Amino acid sequence: MDFELPRLKLDANGLIPAIIQDQTTGQVLMMAWMNGDALDRTIATKKTHFFSRSRNKLWLKGERSGHVQHVKWIRIDCDADVLLIGVDQEGAACHEGYYSCFFREVEPSGVKIVGEKVFDPEKVYA
Amino acid sequence: MDFELPRLKLDANGLIPAIIQDQTTGQVLMMAWMNGDALDRTIATKKTHFFSRSRNKLWLKGERSGHVQHVKWIRIDCDADVLLIGVDQEGAACHEGYYSCFFREVEPSGVKIVGEKVFDPEKVYA
Repeated sequence: MDFELPRLKLDANGLIPAIIQDQTTGQVLMMAWMNGDALDRTIATKKTHFFSRSRNKLWLKGERSGHVQHVKWIRIDCDADVLLIGVDQEGAACHEGYYSCFFREVEPSGVKIVGEKVFDPEKVYA
Repeated sequence: MDFELPRLKLDANGLIPAIIQDQTTGQVLMMAWMNGDALDRTIATKKTHFFSRSRNKLWLKGERSGHVQHVKWIRIDCDADVLLIGVDQEGAACHEGYYSCFFREVEPSGVKIVGEKVFDPEKVYA
């Protein structure tokens, strides 16, 4: 792909938040950070790549679990400082085994699990 | 509401990203930042409040346009450092007049408008 990207507003660390959405169901799967290199690789391979702030390195989503995300479209917001990426998710998005990382809902009585667990992390990351 | 929130991981500036999603259609509307006070007011009023990094102040979404967001649920991700909030949107989310802030899609030939314009900003913000 030879995308002509509009000028993106990266933050002070050269990063931009990328919201990942299941393009079929609309379910929001996760949010992670991209630098220019991660975005370039995402576009070139059509698989999401992110920059890990804790490990200070680029990573391919699914590099250990095999649960890659196939990119279908990339949208930018009005301020050009957030990306929204529509994907087909293999396996699950969350390293805790849930399809979406947003599997907990805040309720007056505490936190309720609302997500679907689709794999056992101890087996996948063994 | 008397929510017992799990411990959230705020960033170095005391902020957490909040993704706002239309709870009926699943459309992602915007992403903005909350501090503890914005989250408290969001929970207390059931209308989204954010912290503006450029204006360095709290704001109620829709305070000028009337386009408020009625909060239906709040989810947190596995790392407790991102919020996903389901809302009923009055009017439109984007100050440029589009229903969603993510109204531009990146294509090989450039950027294509994929969103629906629902109001004229010059009239609403006059």
